[in-house]
Amino acid sequence: MAFEGAVQDLIDELARLPGVGPKGAQRIAFHLLGVDGEQISELIDALRRVKDEVRFCVTCGNVSEEDVCRICRDPRRSDDVICVVEESKDVAAIERTREFRGRYHVLGGALDPVNGVGPEHLRITELMNRLSNPGVGEVIIATDPNLAGEATATYLIRMLSTLGITVTRLASGLPVGGDLEYADEVTLGRAFAGRRAVS
Amino acid sequence: MAFEGAVQDLIDELARLPGVGPKGAQRIAFHLLGVDGEQISELIDALRRVKDEVRFCVTCGNVSEEDVCRICRDPRRSDDVICVVEESKDVAAIERTREFRGRYHVLGGALDPVNGVGPEHLRITELMNRLSNPGVGEVIIATDPNLAGEATATYLIRMLSTLGITVTRLASGLPVGGDLEYADEVTLGRAFAGRRAVS
Repeated sequence: MAFEGAVQDLIDELARLPGVGPKGAQRIAFHLLGVDGEQISELIDALRRVKDEVRFCVTCGNVSEEDVCRICRDPRRSDDVICVVEESKDVAAIERTREFRGRYHVLGGALDPVNGVGPEHLRITELMNRLSNPGVGEVIIATDPNLAGEATATYLIRMLSTLGITVTRLASGLPVGGDLEYADEVTLGRAFAGRRAVS
Repeated sequence: MAFEGAVQDLIDELARLPGVGPKGAQRIAFHLLGVDGEQISELIDALRRVKDEVRFCVTCGNVSEEDVCRICRDPRRSDDVICVVEESKDVAAIERTREFRGRYHVLGGALDPVNGVGPEHLRITELMNRLSNPGVGEVIIATDPNLAGEATATYLIRMLSTLGITVTRLASGLPVGGDLEYADEVTLGRAFAGRRAVS
């Protein structure tokens, strides 16, 4: 323990955050000690508000400040398409594209049997319940393009195949702005397999 | 604004911390949303305790939970030597070496005229007051080995030269565990200038 009680406790708490190591935690703690008390008060306040006010939308599972989130409340969005993602931050990423005007369903993670995350830990039952009401014509599966995301997508496709709803997945291929020579072989293979006629 | 009020506010607050960018802030915010409420409560508590309980030692300027810090209170330490550092975290770094058993004086930064940090912003008057009492035989200047630290050291050496106290500086040279060929020329030059007879 290098510092007196409260400072060391704060460093320990900060070091538990993702992407913040012991050195980074120390830097942040001394930054907060050095600035006037206002920034630390604002941070405490922001944390307390998130703790007290933020919950998860009862419909889609996205973070929300009310029982039903902003996106599920929006009457201008289409009820016809549901995009299934792992986390709320994926919703934010897709919203930034401005390509999608349907609804979302946030699973709360991806299947990861090694770490004990099975289907019962994800909001899959809630998804099936939403789809049991008529009106949804397409489910877009937008899990992460990694091992856990692929496993989750495969599981969902099997679950959804009985419902007679169109199920689609996001295109795999070369990232825009990337270099073809630096693409890994799986990505490049997918780009070939998914090639499109242009004339 | 990608997220609803409280979440976005927390992301904005976290992104102001040193070493945490917008992506890192988002990652931390969703981590805190995802874990049960306990971790966020502990973080709020640690921040509040630092805000309410931590102040600066009236003697040396180090962070402290009482008016006089642990090191200044310790009767086993020598009053004969004062080590002058820029920040409290430098005290922690030196304490880890277990090489020094004297007292410290924390300046609260380094001279940086470009950013408006002059001698009046550092705890130099407090240092001179401490040295006006007899009993201190040596002042070790341990500012950072960079431009601002060197400027501060030069300024302090001039201030202290009138007092008839021995003033020393930390040795410059090759870092232990480093590679000679990767040392920059200034460091290597200092290592030559400071070479010591071994037989």
